[in-house]
Amino acid sequence: MKIKLPYVPERTEKPRSTGVTMVMDKGLSLGQAKDMIEASGHLIDYVKLGFGTSYITPNLREKIELYRNNNITPYLGGTFFEAFVVRGMFEEYKSLLKDLDIRMAEVSDGSIKLQTTQKCKYISNLAKDFEVWSEVGSKEAGILISPNKWVNMMTTELEAGAGKVIAEARESGTVGIYRPNGTAHSVLINKIIAKVNKDSILWEAPIKSQQVYFIKLFGCDVNLGNIAPEEVIPLETLRLGLRGDTFFEYLPKDLKEKFVQQNDV
Amino acid sequence: MKIKLPYVPERTEKPRSTGVTMVMDKGLSLGQAKDMIEASGHLIDYVKLGFGTSYITPNLREKIELYRNNNITPYLGGTFFEAFVVRGMFEEYKSLLKDLDIRMAEVSDGSIKLQTTQKCKYISNLAKDFEVWSEVGSKEAGILISPNKWVNMMTTELEAGAGKVIAEARESGTVGIYRPNGTAHSVLINKIIAKVNKDSILWEAPIKSQQVYFIKLFGCDVNLGNIAPEEVIPLETLRLGLRGDTFFEYLPKDLKEKFVQQNDV
Amino acid sequence: MKIKLPYVPERTEKPRSTGVTMVMDKGLSLGQAKDMIEASGHLIDYVKLGFGTSYITPNLREKIELYRNNNITPYLGGTFFEAFVVRGMFEEYKSLLKDLDIRMAEVSDGSIKLQTTQKCKYISNLAKDFEVWSEVGSKEAGILISPNKWVNMMTTELEAGAGKVIAEARESGTVGIYRPNGTAHSVLINKIIAKVNKDSILWEAPIKSQQVYFIKLFGCDVNLGNIAPEEVIPLETLRLGLRGDTFFEYLPKDLKEKFVQQNDV
Repeated sequence: MKIKLPYVPERTEKPRSTGVTMVMDKGLSLGQAKDMIEASGHLIDYVKLGFGTSYITPNLREKIELYRNNNITPYLGGTFFEAFVVRGMFEEYKSLLKDLDIRMAEVSDGSIKLQTTQKCKYISNLAKDFEVWSEVGSKEAGILISPNKWVNMMTTELEAGAGKVIAEARESGTVGIYRPNGTAHSVLINKIIAKVNKDSILWEAPIKSQQVYFIKLFGCDVNLGNIAPEEVIPLETLRLGLRGDTFFEYLPKDLKEKFVQQNDV
Repeated sequence: MKIKLPYVPERTEKPRSTGVTMVMDKGLSLGQAKDMIEASGHLIDYVKLGFGTSYITPNLREKIELYRNNNITPYLGGTFFEAFVVRGMFEEYKSLLKDLDIRMAEVSDGSIKLQTTQKCKYISNLAKDFEVWSEVGSKEAGILISPNKWVNMMTTELEAGAGKVIAEARESGTVGIYRPNGTAHSVLINKIIAKVNKDSILWEAPIKSQQVYFIKLFGCDVNLGNIAPEEVIPLETLRLGLRGDTFFEYLPKDLKEKFVQQNDV
Repeated sequence: MKIKLPYVPERTEKPRSTGVTMVMDKGLSLGQAKDMIEASGHLIDYVKLGFGTSYITPNLREKIELYRNNNITPYLGGTFFEAFVVRGMFEEYKSLLKDLDIRMAEVSDGSIKLQTTQKCKYISNLAKDFEVWSEVGSKEAGILISPNKWVNMMTTELEAGAGKVIAEARESGTVGIYRPNGTAHSVLINKIIAKVNKDSILWEAPIKSQQVYFIKLFGCDVNLGNIAPEEVIPLETLRLGLRGDTFFEYLPKDLKEKFVQQNDV
């Protein structure tokens, strides 16, 4: 668009390490992936080929190449890493990534139990050859992790070689940093960011209210993930204050006072 | 289909002013827009390029042309109008519409506070050059508007030059004429239609139960909006009584009595 | 994928009568149907052209041919059958199926009341020329059917010529075998399978938690239906134990004990 609106924040531009958007691909066809790229590829930094979908999608190599040719980094979901680890096939997993020309790896323990030392060994081992993201938090709704443990795990895993840590929310946005109804655990999140650099964290935020929560807390350049393909452009409008939920986020105080609605009508 | 079923109501045909369907486009690619048109373009009257998505979609001019070439009227979401107004850039907004060859404008105060006189000035100003729709109702869940005020606003804005007034529901269908859980405010709606011509109102109804509610209240040719692209054909089956929810709507009394299920099994 | 993981169950292969996946097509364009086939056609056995959508989709014959050319059996939703029956046009319905080269028919009484003897007459009549599936259960949330009646209807309709019986859940997954909140009626389901061969039943399971429920109860080769097009690949990962929800389903006991998370962190 030729017109530039004032008070719309400047966003970081690709390639970037803050303000990234990670999309969840649950099995897009090549045609659907091309559609997504045409409409919003300039806004997408990473595409996660979710959980074990890579095992059965027929178009895997072409899709990986398509994403990379459009400056989007594709990688395999952490559950697939765990499926290899639980079977004692970590070396086969590394070979698979190389064979597929995947250059980034997610290390997670969302489904399986891993000792932190063991998890960090996987991180540092993979970090020799790959960009590594490490996911913290269980996929199980009943599993509680104390804020201190969240902080310790994130810190330790970043030191072990993870470029970013991912705060687990699942595709549904109902575990980890969120309650079963999808609202954010504010106390937990505030305790985390008191100790861990927020730019080193990517928050899984599949639901709009969660995206709004993090944009209001951290600003437009917060790292957000598990975004559905059709929600990339709507998310970007939230980041820019061009949707109702964040409309006043970047406007100066006098305009807010003049235009904010109050219940006196 | 060659077979014509009796008791399926005759629908108005495009171009029409009643029975219209307005679709919310949140950032479709050109390919996706073509898919939608191929499957259901004959059923779509208007496409709203939702909130500020126009600001960042790369394919805007082509998409606008594509819609118009298929007898669908594209227009920009009211939140984008408000984003210009709050910045004191109303004239720039008009220039933008002309530059984009957009021929319809939405005037709204869903996010910002506007005095009715001010809102009507925008309506009558735009009505000189554009078809104007005016949206009534706040996007804020906590903002309450009395039925009398709904009626007054709608009446005044129609007189100011709006071709239709839109009853706000958001993409989520949880504010304005709906409760937070998405059910309709029946008392409010009945008070509105006692005073305002129902054909001058377009009801935002993104959720199926809301579409069913209005079809049962007003018949197949009610004006409905904020329909998701993949819900256009399902909505048309609801209008025609070809889905469970409205199955008996147009059948004669004797068939209803013979075939309606009762809890005596 | 060249790598084969141990403990991933062998699935039946198309054409098959158990482990089938039925997809709900609510009005896909030809392009969208091609996308779905490219990504997941090898996993889809049946496509239901949902409720009365066939009456208004412009691409019906081409889509039917497209599905069949890819070894997917298309058929028309039961509500459309009921729309003909309620109008006394059963013969016209049969002619329509033949004209469209549809080779399978669904008989249902989800919206209308049919005596079992009458329903079975439709089944046996259609079974002369078509593969027939018969759906059991009301679309109405308030209609209660006793477990004995479920069993009797299923048994009688299978004897009348139905190849499978379908347990109703609607597109929303909130009636029939499910409660309004979408959870499964376990007692009802267990009483059904005590008397009816589970391979003769297809469970409508549009929601992930419902798919997980049936996979855990019956294994990877349970028959599931009303799957959304974009959920075919995610469902297959659930069947194979490659998603968090079913991750430990097929692993040997020692691996489960070693890796299952417990709330002792």
